[in-house]
Amino acid sequence: MSRLSSEQAFLDLIAEHFPNAHPNLELGRGDDCALLKCPPRVCLTTDLFLEDRHFRRAYFAPEDVGRKALAVNVSDILGMGARPLGFALNLMAPPDVEREWWSRMFLAMSGLAREYDLPLAGGDLSLDERIGLAVTVWGEPWPGGEFKRRGMAEAGDTLFAVGHLGLARAGLLALEEKGRHAQADFPHAVACHLCPCLSPKASNTLSRLPFVRGLMDVSDGLAQDVPRFVGPRLGAALDLDPAVLHEEVRIAAGAHGQDPALFAALGGEDYALLGALPPDRLAEARDRVPELVPIGTVTPEPGLTLHGAPLGRGFDHFQKD
Amino acid sequence: MSRLSSEQAFLDLIAEHFPNAHPNLELGRGDDCALLKCPPRVCLTTDLFLEDRHFRRAYFAPEDVGRKALAVNVSDILGMGARPLGFALNLMAPPDVEREWWSRMFLAMSGLAREYDLPLAGGDLSLDERIGLAVTVWGEPWPGGEFKRRGMAEAGDTLFAVGHLGLARAGLLALEEKGRHAQADFPHAVACHLCPCLSPKASNTLSRLPFVRGLMDVSDGLAQDVPRFVGPRLGAALDLDPAVLHEEVRIAAGAHGQDPALFAALGGEDYALLGALPPDRLAEARDRVPELVPIGTVTPEPGLTLHGAPLGRGFDHFQKD
Repeated sequence: MSRLSSEQAFLDLIAEHFPNAHPNLELGRGDDCALLKCPPRVCLTTDLFLEDRHFRRAYFAPEDVGRKALAVNVSDILGMGARPLGFALNLMAPPDVEREWWSRMFLAMSGLAREYDLPLAGGDLSLDERIGLAVTVWGEPWPGGEFKRRGMAEAGDTLFAVGHLGLARAGLLALEEKGRHAQADFPHAVACHLCPCLSPKASNTLSRLPFVRGLMDVSDGLAQDVPRFVGPRLGAALDLDPAVLHEEVRIAAGAHGQDPALFAALGGEDYALLGALPPDRLAEARDRVPELVPIGTVTPEPGLTLHGAPLGRGFDHFQKD
Repeated sequence: MSRLSSEQAFLDLIAEHFPNAHPNLELGRGDDCALLKCPPRVCLTTDLFLEDRHFRRAYFAPEDVGRKALAVNVSDILGMGARPLGFALNLMAPPDVEREWWSRMFLAMSGLAREYDLPLAGGDLSLDERIGLAVTVWGEPWPGGEFKRRGMAEAGDTLFAVGHLGLARAGLLALEEKGRHAQADFPHAVACHLCPCLSPKASNTLSRLPFVRGLMDVSDGLAQDVPRFVGPRLGAALDLDPAVLHEEVRIAAGAHGQDPALFAALGGEDYALLGALPPDRLAEARDRVPELVPIGTVTPEPGLTLHGAPLGRGFDHFQKD
């Protein structure tokens, strides 16, 4: 096992995993800036993925770190009804992490990048006490689609979700309790926490349906994200049929003595898609996106309820520690 | 003194300092992504600015941190012969840092943003052990100008610089030795380390001169950056007239028993501009950019010399600690 002792060794490893020429780039890594071949309408997002805040090496394999750091940003692009075009990476690197660790991390990250055909356009590298990644991703509307923003829903609209609500939370709780051994009892939940399942096809299809009034990715749980989605002037009445929840969510909720729907509504890191549409278009949308499930109704007054009972906004990630 | 105990308190403070609507943005903060009004040719850069790696709170005031974190990225844009259009900010925040500190940091950052008319388009916030900023900036060519890349110089070209070489290094050494008291003896050097002096006017003018063959920003010192600028097939013979160096560089070099030119060539964080042009155009360029100084010649063979003696590549930032 060896360490990456120089910046050049790091850059060489990155070059092994990420080609520097790509149709989306006029100029890749190696200058002050990357030059992007930029479509007229671009969306951009950036997120931190920090050791012991967003992941623990105790149960995140290097592959999980590499994939998830990129996936959570891709999820934001999909949540705009857009497709990602490229990314940049800032890397915080402790000196004692083995070359093998980085190599596995980059291999998984480049695998996901290939899946979405994303070039790594540049970034920065710094020594630090802990591993950290700051990823920036940009994208454009899907062909024939349009950006889907928040705050577009109307009172009476049906709220829908695509993806597993609460499953990543079940995975996190199990991983925190038992480490990777949690995989035995909660294989899907653990997989979902370690690497979010994204829905690019649903994002693509929904972005092309003019009656879909807004889309976002649920990253902090429905309790936090639904109010952000409908905006301050509207509210929502959530109705989460336990039958649509993953079996492992129901088991985890039971083990924690919680109602499964409440457990799911408080779950962070789902990276599910959340959207709104007129109720008479639900059937048509489900024809196009069969995994779409209705989860409630937009109400004319602010406030959030779940099965008729008021629902607080859940915890503040910033206050978690 | 109070602390910012919730994510919302942080977002409110950011909203106080950074307007969310801007002609360069179709959509600002508050959705999954920002929507940029994107020109067809865009350059993009991203950098880390981490406590105890890139700055120390012992002698960086909050204002210095806010300005420099943004300035080093703006410098990369200027080094492409481009003007910045907007930025995104990832923030690592220890829970015990006072609201006052953040407020002063944001005030200075927003001051620099206003100078360049840059909207803050989005970002992320995470608790962390130390303060850290990951800034992403994008830009477009100056009106009538063109992107200036590295690797465009030809053998025989004159290398030139705009900005103070070695001055930030003199400042860093003085600050590390005496903290802010260093200001008494090295006012310019200290100021230059705490907040790089950028040259937007020179970047603008040089980008519109077709005979300027490439531009970059010197961030790791000439010894590292000149080989990157000329590329692997060419070399450079540097000739740094001590008379063009700042007086404080000459004093600092003397205090460390070093030749002033060598001291300057090894200086990191200059954020000066480095470029190349045919020697017969030097006078014309100096007419347009009076602060431009010739610093050597591009040679047909690889290798870097200073006043005829071989010059190593200086230290590797990644190995510094």
